[in-house]
Amino acid sequence: MMEKKSLEICFTPAIFEVHADSEAVVVVIDVLRATSSICTAFANGVRSIIPVSTVEEAKIMKKRGYLLAAERDGFVLDFADFGNSPYNFTAGKVKDRTVAYSTTNGTGIMKQASECHDVVIGSYLNFSALCNWLGEQDRKVIIVCAGWKSRFSLEDAVCAGAIAERLLEGGRFTTICDSVHAATDLWKCAKTDLMGYIEKAAQRSRLKEKGLDDCLKYCHTFDVTSVIPVLRSGRLVTI
Amino acid sequence: MMEKKSLEICFTPAIFEVHADSEAVVVVIDVLRATSSICTAFANGVRSIIPVSTVEEAKIMKKRGYLLAAERDGFVLDFADFGNSPYNFTAGKVKDRTVAYSTTNGTGIMKQASECHDVVIGSYLNFSALCNWLGEQDRKVIIVCAGWKSRFSLEDAVCAGAIAERLLEGGRFTTICDSVHAATDLWKCAKTDLMGYIEKAAQRSRLKEKGLDDCLKYCHTFDVTSVIPVLRSGRLVTI
Repeated sequence: MMEKKSLEICFTPAIFEVHADSEAVVVVIDVLRATSSICTAFANGVRSIIPVSTVEEAKIMKKRGYLLAAERDGFVLDFADFGNSPYNFTAGKVKDRTVAYSTTNGTGIMKQASECHDVVIGSYLNFSALCNWLGEQDRKVIIVCAGWKSRFSLEDAVCAGAIAERLLEGGRFTTICDSVHAATDLWKCAKTDLMGYIEKAAQRSRLKEKGLDDCLKYCHTFDVTSVIPVLRSGRLVTI
Repeated sequence: MMEKKSLEICFTPAIFEVHADSEAVVVVIDVLRATSSICTAFANGVRSIIPVSTVEEAKIMKKRGYLLAAERDGFVLDFADFGNSPYNFTAGKVKDRTVAYSTTNGTGIMKQASECHDVVIGSYLNFSALCNWLGEQDRKVIIVCAGWKSRFSLEDAVCAGAIAERLLEGGRFTTICDSVHAATDLWKCAKTDLMGYIEKAAQRSRLKEKGLDDCLKYCHTFDVTSVIPVLRSGRLVTI
């Protein structure tokens, strides 16, 4: 029997350095909407996604001929091909293509975590496939919530709690991380009425104000796909 | 009727700058044990407490003749008069004295927040007095959890949630802060068996390992005192 591995949750990229461990698998969560969109893109056959941190880098990638998905604060950058809604990443647009992708909160942490053993993309959409794969790795897992501009985000914490509960129930993980205890309790508060619970999240209000909340239910749907996007040499590809 | 004021919770000093607001009252929470000890010291008649960030500063204050309370990671610094247990701050030791005080997590944030309108000290020990006073200020309130070396701490989040619940129930505050929603839900999970809930907190284990957990129940006792320590010109005094 394998020794139980450590499980941690990091509630904001701003404190990632205190959780970082070069031997760990890092799971990045940005439910509304970056990691939900990335999982959708891979489900729809995208070849690879290049995470881009800054607006300047995004502009350069567009000039180099990449398909560009880029937004800031919910608004599509004017030189981008499309924004951050998962509904943009249709097979018609992305199948067999490489997409450069920059968002307000989700892409920066992928680069920040790239010195860890593996960086994978998590969401409700690939929940069971991801949890099963994590259970097989025999490695410490750090779930990082993308949050909002360094702040704590409720919808990411709840999803991290759902993953943590599943991993701990599987018996291959143990934790001494307070964030794991908090997130699993928040998930317990939320799970009987997930959409009702998420109503109070600030990001839910931000999307609503901009008419971008059509994907809310989709982004909270379990197991739409079994893809597990992983960062390899600066690109997201399927595992 | 006064306009409702904004309420935020900051889960770790590492992201204080994204919450900071020069017009706000900041409440610092470090249940185990700094802010519980500070409330105890004022209840026992200390004249003032000078928060000190570094070990070097603590050494200088001792040389200047101040009574020094200082610890790192639960261990009393060898040149200090005593450490961070609230039981050290007896009337016999601190009445009418000025104490220089440095801890692992609690004192740094007090200095960091000192540019806000007011910095006050919160704990279960002064809970009702603090909540009543905050309700009378007609100002935005930011509750900052001292946490553990930039990490999220469960016991601080739960206490922050208890304060937030009381303030929101009072009708003078409103919130769009996800951390407030999370903390009040954690408080709801914890409050029917607070001591049982805190068993899983990492800091509870750290104190136990060092035999420093004798104050655990005391630090989770409501309304032992009505003192509200406030930072004025770099010193904590009673309001």
